[in-house]
Amino acid sequence: MRLLVVNVNTTDAMTQTIAAQARAVAAAGTEIVGLTPAFGAPSVEGNFESYLAAVAVMECVRAYAGPYDAVIQAGFGEHGREGLQELLTVPVVDITEAAASVAMFLGRSYSVITTLDRAVPLIEDRLKLAGLDARCASVRASGLAVLDLEESPVQACEAIVAQARRAVDEDRAEVLCLGCGGMAGLDEQVRLATGVPVVDGVTAAVAVAESLVRLGLKTSKIRTYAPPLPKVLQHWPPAGA
Amino acid sequence: MRLLVVNVNTTDAMTQTIAAQARAVAAAGTEIVGLTPAFGAPSVEGNFESYLAAVAVMECVRAYAGPYDAVIQAGFGEHGREGLQELLTVPVVDITEAAASVAMFLGRSYSVITTLDRAVPLIEDRLKLAGLDARCASVRASGLAVLDLEESPVQACEAIVAQARRAVDEDRAEVLCLGCGGMAGLDEQVRLATGVPVVDGVTAAVAVAESLVRLGLKTSKIRTYAPPLPKVLQHWPPAGA
Amino acid sequence: MRLLVVNVNTTDAMTQTIAAQARAVAAAGTEIVGLTPAFGAPSVEGNFESYLAAVAVMECVRAYAGPYDAVIQAGFGEHGREGLQELLTVPVVDITEAAASVAMFLGRSYSVITTLDRAVPLIEDRLKLAGLDARCASVRASGLAVLDLEESPVQACEAIVAQARRAVDEDRAEVLCLGCGGMAGLDEQVRLATGVPVVDGVTAAVAVAESLVRLGLKTSKIRTYAPPLPKVLQHWPPAGA
Amino acid sequence: MRLLVVNVNTTDAMTQTIAAQARAVAAAGTEIVGLTPAFGAPSVEGNFESYLAAVAVMECVRAYAGPYDAVIQAGFGEHGREGLQELLTVPVVDITEAAASVAMFLGRSYSVITTLDRAVPLIEDRLKLAGLDARCASVRASGLAVLDLEESPVQACEAIVAQARRAVDEDRAEVLCLGCGGMAGLDEQVRLATGVPVVDGVTAAVAVAESLVRLGLKTSKIRTYAPPLPKVLQHWPPAGA
Amino acid sequence: MRLLVVNVNTTDAMTQTIAAQARAVAAAGTEIVGLTPAFGAPSVEGNFESYLAAVAVMECVRAYAGPYDAVIQAGFGEHGREGLQELLTVPVVDITEAAASVAMFLGRSYSVITTLDRAVPLIEDRLKLAGLDARCASVRASGLAVLDLEESPVQACEAIVAQARRAVDEDRAEVLCLGCGGMAGLDEQVRLATGVPVVDGVTAAVAVAESLVRLGLKTSKIRTYAPPLPKVLQHWPPAGA
Amino acid sequence: MRLLVVNVNTTDAMTQTIAAQARAVAAAGTEIVGLTPAFGAPSVEGNFESYLAAVAVMECVRAYAGPYDAVIQAGFGEHGREGLQELLTVPVVDITEAAASVAMFLGRSYSVITTLDRAVPLIEDRLKLAGLDARCASVRASGLAVLDLEESPVQACEAIVAQARRAVDEDRAEVLCLGCGGMAGLDEQVRLATGVPVVDGVTAAVAVAESLVRLGLKTSKIRTYAPPLPKVLQHWPPAGA
Repeated sequence: MRLLVVNVNTTDAMTQTIAAQARAVAAAGTEIVGLTPAFGAPSVEGNFESYLAAVAVMECVRAYAGPYDAVIQAGFGEHGREGLQELLTVPVVDITEAAASVAMFLGRSYSVITTLDRAVPLIEDRLKLAGLDARCASVRASGLAVLDLEESPVQACEAIVAQARRAVDEDRAEVLCLGCGGMAGLDEQVRLATGVPVVDGVTAAVAVAESLVRLGLKTSKIRTYAPPLPKVLQHWPPAGA
Repeated sequence: MRLLVVNVNTTDAMTQTIAAQARAVAAAGTEIVGLTPAFGAPSVEGNFESYLAAVAVMECVRAYAGPYDAVIQAGFGEHGREGLQELLTVPVVDITEAAASVAMFLGRSYSVITTLDRAVPLIEDRLKLAGLDARCASVRASGLAVLDLEESPVQACEAIVAQARRAVDEDRAEVLCLGCGGMAGLDEQVRLATGVPVVDGVTAAVAVAESLVRLGLKTSKIRTYAPPLPKVLQHWPPAGA
Repeated sequence: MRLLVVNVNTTDAMTQTIAAQARAVAAAGTEIVGLTPAFGAPSVEGNFESYLAAVAVMECVRAYAGPYDAVIQAGFGEHGREGLQELLTVPVVDITEAAASVAMFLGRSYSVITTLDRAVPLIEDRLKLAGLDARCASVRASGLAVLDLEESPVQACEAIVAQARRAVDEDRAEVLCLGCGGMAGLDEQVRLATGVPVVDGVTAAVAVAESLVRLGLKTSKIRTYAPPLPKVLQHWPPAGA
Repeated sequence: MRLLVVNVNTTDAMTQTIAAQARAVAAAGTEIVGLTPAFGAPSVEGNFESYLAAVAVMECVRAYAGPYDAVIQAGFGEHGREGLQELLTVPVVDITEAAASVAMFLGRSYSVITTLDRAVPLIEDRLKLAGLDARCASVRASGLAVLDLEESPVQACEAIVAQARRAVDEDRAEVLCLGCGGMAGLDEQVRLATGVPVVDGVTAAVAVAESLVRLGLKTSKIRTYAPPLPKVLQHWPPAGA
Repeated sequence: MRLLVVNVNTTDAMTQTIAAQARAVAAAGTEIVGLTPAFGAPSVEGNFESYLAAVAVMECVRAYAGPYDAVIQAGFGEHGREGLQELLTVPVVDITEAAASVAMFLGRSYSVITTLDRAVPLIEDRLKLAGLDARCASVRASGLAVLDLEESPVQACEAIVAQARRAVDEDRAEVLCLGCGGMAGLDEQVRLATGVPVVDGVTAAVAVAESLVRLGLKTSKIRTYAPPLPKVLQHWPPAGA
Repeated sequence: MRLLVVNVNTTDAMTQTIAAQARAVAAAGTEIVGLTPAFGAPSVEGNFESYLAAVAVMECVRAYAGPYDAVIQAGFGEHGREGLQELLTVPVVDITEAAASVAMFLGRSYSVITTLDRAVPLIEDRLKLAGLDARCASVRASGLAVLDLEESPVQACEAIVAQARRAVDEDRAEVLCLGCGGMAGLDEQVRLATGVPVVDGVTAAVAVAESLVRLGLKTSKIRTYAPPLPKVLQHWPPAGA
């Protein structure tokens, strides 16, 4: 099967990192195609950039010509999943929801460790709308920006581990989720430092997407995610997108 | 003061209707400026179109040159309010939240009567994230599309009244909200048919926006709605937007 | 229009302070009438006094002869709003709900800073019943009694600012509400000290009440707030009330 | 021990009915003292009358000279319990909460059958504030006024049974609570008609109050129910109350 | 009347302690029969042991020949109450629910002080399913195992008091529940140390059970707690149980 | 990898059906081992039988000698998953939670169609404790017993489809879950009849378990699911179990 793994920002290097992370866990016979949106922010941190990413991801998928079996939206806490589900019949898996869903099989409560403080409300909002918040112990910010993760990996890891420990000790989290597509590869370090299972959103999403495809399940089109009504959009999509 | 009232679709006639509705209740000295997005759908019905509207509204406001005191997002149940709040310091008022907020001063519970069934989940999601859902008795759909409201006003009104009556009788709503920017002017008819107060989102939003401006209150910039970090966006905004 | 602003305690000086606060934001053409209950406690701190205030406020309004367009109950966290809504058809605005409602347009979460610790449960109860608690980050007490606010304004302000800072830093409040009718005038100081918008209940209630009147909206009489059935009350109201 | 059972209305005959109901289940050695408020409504139906009842009940208890071990507030869904708890150290038991609390030991969900439709919101509010609403399947109104219960007992019973059946069949209630102090004695008929346990608030409250007294438990005075601060009340209580 | 008080572990000495605690508050004429399960763990700490206790308690009651009027399950936070309710028509009272239910009549919020940290989730789960969690301020662990309570009573009491103080000061609990059947007799010490009412689950359950019996109330058999369908169980109960 | 799929009842034929259903979706290289408990009920319908199944399943797994990578508890709405998680380090997947978790990726809301009415509360309780209830539209019973599914497959299917249609039309479910391990193979028929995706718990659980194993994730042992303390159990397990 072929899975589209769509980055939410325009930084191609991050797309490659995410796709590699996805390939590392993909089953034999699963092809991972990493996609980078044609427009938007080089990193997504906040609602304005996230809404922009939502439409950029949708156009990116609409512009992809070949067949595919499922789509993974590889932004943690970002807008847009509902729109993709309208556009497609194949399953759409948001890494935020995949991480939370997997975490809930491993312990009674989970925390998310993310980047900037301003990402916390976005993640909380996504979890609430997804109905996955009841067992969320906390969403904590390391204070590092998305792009710091690649530039200062050692400090990034230390800051993440520090919050991870507080999540376990103070918030009683029993499982941790890494709340940024760019944290790929840190899960083992955080697990060793805290002693609790650590879920990476991208790899969780690959497993979920593969499961849905293998089970032959598709998005329900009966109401919320029915296809858009046929309409002539004005000046959209933008030329070159 | 000057209020920008931003339509979420690209239909200029609807912008004019909304702006007229706003002017009808604006205080002396309040100037209403109606804005139509440069791109998007002629009517917004569903998540894909709503996400597109979110960014179109943001670009529309960013492209507006003159000064203004507050912005009203005139789409019921649409995405995007959080992004506008990041971009601006003046108050941003979503008509969904304004309607619910005003309704809650008038009765113990309220229902929303909207257009298509597929709009119901969007409105429910907005009310839940806004924390205004606890007293929402129901969100009901009349089954008519947004543009039917202008084309078949009599049937539209009948369908809306039918659901309004069920909201009052079956769901125990004590107040009704008209859940579409295009339902302007129907409030009196629905009130007469049901005997309960009817809140129109656009006029409620004008009153709320004027209140915030007069009280000298602005959006909190301390965390969730802090301005976007300075970044170079890729291929955005689209040429001509 | 004429708004009745009803103090909940019997201290006429506080009525004057509240009425002045209301007049400072009232629109041209809005007359503010301050009313003091004929019986009750000189300051309302706790459930017994609050229940007494509820009936005293109702009798105070019933005894007022002239016409008026809306009533503001100027006690933060006090009982009685539902009873007033039964007695009247004009809008009734409780300052607790007005403050919370306005705050929710300005930031993702708000905290209330009140006087004594024992006021906290009352405020929490009012917000819960009003369905306005989902985005309430905390209700914090400064530890000062209502009348301390007038007698020791400097210390009062310091104690309030101290709790306001904790609300922002520890509870992640993005907006603050001053939770006592007697805190009028402190909003600017608290805003400067914390950097977040500060909502005063009395001024918020004036804006809300004016909005409802201008929009022609009245209390729903269909069920919860239907007028009391015609009955002969025993020994009530008390002579002289 | 001596229990004060305080009616919320001024109808002495109803006080006698309630007291007799209480005596029928009181343990040997428990004295039941029925009290009727000195002012208020002959039946309490709605928020205005209920707030008035709240203060009338408090004054009634304050005016009672002798010793007593606990107080039962015998109004279903009425205001005031928190105020009584401030005034007293002995336990205060509201019949609404006693009925719900007992019902929850008997089945997975319970419904309340009350009198007029306008009583439903009051009961729902009390249960929500008491944190006893999670297992409440519904609050249903028979449509009969409080005083109809004594005047037309046969029709009253039929109307109550009709709603009781719907609660069991449609709302999946497994236990029923009679939601009016004046429904004393109907429990057996409703039980026979529906096949589920029926809880009468007054008798439940007697059992709860006796239990608290026997266990030596008193109201916590540490915060919410601390005694009122010493103050000179203005023109209160009314002469003759 | 005769009440069966069933210990959840196989330690007969603890059964005796619990039964003595029950007898100390039982009414004249109430016979307390303490029962010890025939199989299971000497102390119940965790889900595996708790599930085992659930079936052991059920078999223990099924094996009891004589008549009885109600059953008390004397394990705090343990599984099994729903199963007992299916098997019996007489009331079944779980000490967790009895403690919480009684505590809610005494203050606005309560905390539970239990033994090991791993007991906290079990207690939280029981309170949530019972719909008694809304006013639960916290469940805190003293860190001592069940059997430490008998072996090191002084240290146990100190550790319990330390957490009790934090519950009152930090979590704003107004009432405390002792969250282990083996904490019998510590209530007075904890009350003196904290100044708030302390509820012991076993004695609370005796009072609740006696109340239900005296009121003539039995478990609803209409749906959830209907008797098991007639079936031939395989290899159950175990020989000698 | 090897997955243990444990039936909750003692009917070996049902174990075979469940195991075949699991094998039909298992990946190449996944071995499915079906296990039948040594004691308990031939079908599990109600809390007593479910608690018994919980311990029977635990003993069944404890008695299994060989290595395995994950355990699937194949009872819908049954007790016991938390206990298994304590006993094991490999992942434990309950089919109730697997079905709900998978359904939530496919539509905005889901309903469960189960067997007898008395199973509804058990399923609701499991979903609530698992924090997977927020998007559950309803749990509906077909009225057929577990063993009817094999004996009268045509009528069973009709009864299930009838409730499935009501879930979609009346409860607004967008996805359906088959709420009994014995409904294996009906998913396609229900999907065709309703037009919405249908999730079978057993196959969903296989996909989830395989995913967890492939991702190298295990149960968190830090608190709730820490191994039982070393103790000598009394008369347990039963001889021959």
